[in-house]
Amino acid sequence: MQGTVEDVDVPSASDVLRRCRELVRPALVDAVGRLHPWTGEMAAYSLGWSDTAGTPEPGGSEGKGVRQALALLGAEAVGADAACAVPGAVAVELVHTFSLLHDDVMDADALRRRRPAVWKAYGTGPAVLAGDALLARAVTGLAETPGHHVAAAVRRLCGALNDLVAGQAEDLRFEHRPWDGPGAVGPEEYRSMAEGKTGALLGCALALGAVLGGAPEPTVAALDRAGRHLGLAFQAVDDILGIWGDPATTGKPVHADLHRGKKTHPVLAALAGGSRAARELGTLLASARPTDAAAAERVASLVEEAGGRAATRGEARRHLDAARDALRATPLTRTAARELDVLFAGLADRVM
Amino acid sequence: MQGTVEDVDVPSASDVLRRCRELVRPALVDAVGRLHPWTGEMAAYSLGWSDTAGTPEPGGSEGKGVRQALALLGAEAVGADAACAVPGAVAVELVHTFSLLHDDVMDADALRRRRPAVWKAYGTGPAVLAGDALLARAVTGLAETPGHHVAAAVRRLCGALNDLVAGQAEDLRFEHRPWDGPGAVGPEEYRSMAEGKTGALLGCALALGAVLGGAPEPTVAALDRAGRHLGLAFQAVDDILGIWGDPATTGKPVHADLHRGKKTHPVLAALAGGSRAARELGTLLASARPTDAAAAERVASLVEEAGGRAATRGEARRHLDAARDALRATPLTRTAARELDVLFAGLADRVM
Repeated sequence: MQGTVEDVDVPSASDVLRRCRELVRPALVDAVGRLHPWTGEMAAYSLGWSDTAGTPEPGGSEGKGVRQALALLGAEAVGADAACAVPGAVAVELVHTFSLLHDDVMDADALRRRRPAVWKAYGTGPAVLAGDALLARAVTGLAETPGHHVAAAVRRLCGALNDLVAGQAEDLRFEHRPWDGPGAVGPEEYRSMAEGKTGALLGCALALGAVLGGAPEPTVAALDRAGRHLGLAFQAVDDILGIWGDPATTGKPVHADLHRGKKTHPVLAALAGGSRAARELGTLLASARPTDAAAAERVASLVEEAGGRAATRGEARRHLDAARDALRATPLTRTAARELDVLFAGLADRVM
Repeated sequence: MQGTVEDVDVPSASDVLRRCRELVRPALVDAVGRLHPWTGEMAAYSLGWSDTAGTPEPGGSEGKGVRQALALLGAEAVGADAACAVPGAVAVELVHTFSLLHDDVMDADALRRRRPAVWKAYGTGPAVLAGDALLARAVTGLAETPGHHVAAAVRRLCGALNDLVAGQAEDLRFEHRPWDGPGAVGPEEYRSMAEGKTGALLGCALALGAVLGGAPEPTVAALDRAGRHLGLAFQAVDDILGIWGDPATTGKPVHADLHRGKKTHPVLAALAGGSRAARELGTLLASARPTDAAAAERVASLVEEAGGRAATRGEARRHLDAARDALRATPLTRTAARELDVLFAGLADRVM
């Protein structure tokens, strides 16, 4: 039986992700194999390859691998072979895993992809160490790749790393800022935090593929910009899921962000609305952090009533459009551009 | 008044260290200034430049800066200007600071240079973040340095980073190993751990200076080897201070390593001795970890009686000699070679 023309022409987002994971997998397995056996075990656990006893759990809790896919598609989009971007794909995937490990420690998030976070499963110190090992391995693997474009790729990766850490610093600091008044977090500050925390590495993934594929600087910059917008859309979606997401799907407790007093887009947008619900929300948040389920439920309702959820959905859509526009305005090979578009659009399905 | 001929010819170790700190300081201040302000504040605290309120404390709890000095002397030793090694000096100093921050989290060490460790002063999450920021900045600063030798320098730094993290992993794993029997830590395993944890970065510091100074590979390798031996001597001295050091000098609690069950050289060497004291020590350690001061004191006495302290002093001396021999066997400029020798010898004064 043959597939339809549509099947052949436009693979689904999950097809694209699967193809890329399969291309990157051997190099990723090799990179993890170069770690100290103990940190390697924690890395394999956090990548969803095995359980805490080190027993393989193929595909069980594996991430989608969006970043590694972006790196390969970034190369293909500039007419290069995906293979040249594999070292970049491995690097961004390891940096992503490093950041999940350390962020879970900093945010005291006990669950990750429906399983205990690494610090819960192995202890805080070991989780810090495993993150360090992943970060060191990420930069090393890229720096040791032969080729003319590697030095530029390492600089790109380093730039993203600095942005990522600065974004996480902002996010943590925001928790100590008031919801209202002169010390409140403004929209520009929120955006800068989200771009660092989530956009920098997605932009870097696409850009790394293009750099390793030998693309000229304007193309690299356009892909980086597209990835950063994608990241801002991603973060908006994450903020929605952090309040209204189903724990069975998100793998995280319900209302987690509300209990922690995270300065997320829906709440900030709701407070900026000025409606009766916004004022009630402001009063409620100013008095105390919601500590029980009923209080969090009340906050979530008010955020929705004050338009916070709709505003954040709009924010996600705007950044997704900007990301797709940035791609369309760049001369890219047709197949990869379509696959990127499918991948970008697939994100929207998560909440819209 | 003129100094004597000796004063002019051979500066003291502290003169050498001070000169190097002064040369590196502006670039180090610049690097810390590029961090997010919050992580920058923690970095300045951990570098001993300020207190927890961010108030400057000039020189109060600053480290000696051995690694930055080795980087500059590595360049001078191969006939290059120290200035070319400053980016390498900054990188190794930031990596060292990163490792202190994260190691203190992993080891639950509450004191560092007589002040609360960063995780005690700012919290565990922030200390992890500050370490990440320092590591990212270290690699970035070096990768962004212009020049032909930078790619090789970045690879060297990455190699040392991986060794450092693997050494720390070994050190933590050793705590769960028995003191005796088939699962005991052997001398080769101890050496490999200490070389990774302490030797790799010291070797890297010297080698980076030589690489940035344009030295040929055999010279770079010889300097790396010298630095690694220096690191092994350093670790032996540290192990002695971790048991018998004066808390007023070390800035750490007395017998800290014994309470934690650290597999240090003096204890391992004592157990290997086979004397009556060694057997008594083995029985004592097999029964329980010393939890109070009297028990730790008893362990320390037995380690000394069984020859552990003397053996470790010998180990330090052997590695120091090997380090100095490696320097002497390499064609280096006279002044820098003498300053390195003074610096290496100065280490011995700490315990011998």
